[in-house]
Amino acid sequence: MNHPNRKETITVLVDGRTKAKLRRLAGDSYRTLSGYVRHLILAHIREAEALRGPIPDEEPLCPGPGRGTIKGI
Amino acid sequence: MNHPNRKETITVLVDGRTKAKLRRLAGDSYRTLSGYVRHLILAHIREAEALRGPIPDEEPLCPGPGRGTIKGI
Repeated sequence: MNHPNRKETITVLVDGRTKAKLRRLAGDSYRTLSGYVRHLILAHIREAEALRGPIPDEEPLCPGPGRGTIKGI
Repeated sequence: MNHPNRKETITVLVDGRTKAKLRRLAGDSYRTLSGYVRHLILAHIREAEALRGPIPDEEPLCPGPGRGTIKGI
């Protein structure tokens, strides 16, 4: 993770019906579609952390050149 | 709503830390980031519908020319 505070995008593929329902739910709480899903994600992370403790916000170690985040190497 | 079954995208802006945490959660359940958020969205819609009944999957009526979905006009 290079820029923890930088805004990044997540793109999700859904069918048209799901998007329409979500847009309806978002509108009901005066949020944009993107804002609503962001709210959903943040609430989910809070819940998960309440259950299992802090979730690391660094990239998991991955095999392959240049993908790891081992400090001091 | 023109194509209810067509795949559409939702783009969500989040900070890098949130994306990294979400990627970790996604990996833990062997899902892609996009698949994980889609799963989250579908579960949320199911919950909302269990609480308040079916959510319409048509666009809400909006003011302004060409935005409404009034049938027969």
